[in-house]
Amino acid sequence: MRAAGEAPADGWLDAVRYDANGLVPAVAQDATTQQVLTLAYMNRAALERTVATGEAHYWSRSRAKLWHKGEQSGHVQRVREIRLDCDADAVLLIVEPHGGVACHTGRVRCFYRRLEGGAWRTIDPVIEDPATVYGDD
Amino acid sequence: MRAAGEAPADGWLDAVRYDANGLVPAVAQDATTQQVLTLAYMNRAALERTVATGEAHYWSRSRAKLWHKGEQSGHVQRVREIRLDCDADAVLLIVEPHGGVACHTGRVRCFYRRLEGGAWRTIDPVIEDPATVYGDD
Repeated sequence: MRAAGEAPADGWLDAVRYDANGLVPAVAQDATTQQVLTLAYMNRAALERTVATGEAHYWSRSRAKLWHKGEQSGHVQRVREIRLDCDADAVLLIVEPHGGVACHTGRVRCFYRRLEGGAWRTIDPVIEDPATVYGDD
Repeated sequence: MRAAGEAPADGWLDAVRYDANGLVPAVAQDATTQQVLTLAYMNRAALERTVATGEAHYWSRSRAKLWHKGEQSGHVQRVREIRLDCDADAVLLIVEPHGGVACHTGRVRCFYRRLEGGAWRTIDPVIEDPATVYGDD
């Protein structure tokens, strides 16, 4: 039983300002290389599962379901640290990406295109057959 | 006049998948420290101005206007590199933050709270009087 005035155990989940769809953008950054790997979305349940399991869970907007990152590919993201921004409407995950592939295209990270001379150039190589990363997006 | 089949000069702007509100989330990462500083939103005009000027422009959702980051505080973000993710619905800016303060609270970055023991703890210090950063959010 909680004492009067004590913060509820899941108050931190309620402190997050989810959008009209119940989602908050979550940036994943590699704890070792510091590269920004992915930008995905979390709902309350995804954030709760992430903390409960220590592995990144997101809300897949395309599949409309809770998504344990790497559940099929094995490329789970171990979460070392979770941060919240000033407006409480964006989350930053510091992660250890298992297998070194975060993108469903078989690349280290999703941000593999760079603006060069007025065009998006693909500059990061595919390091794993995308077929084996299937379902990881 | 463009030759047939030639890509339009602003095709890169149209390649971005803006959401129903015409926005795309944009993560700013410090080119030197590698810290993730901010998550803000861009519309097509903000992205165009960013490239044209070399300084980050965003769409302020709270003020519903184009926002040249640092226009009042002086804490502009010089953009060294712009990346696009696999789904073309998120942008990553590699920036040099002038003045070393990216957050309107006077902190280096907006992600200054960390989840610790079921609570968001403020762990990054204020390094500039927030009053002087006014209007920068």
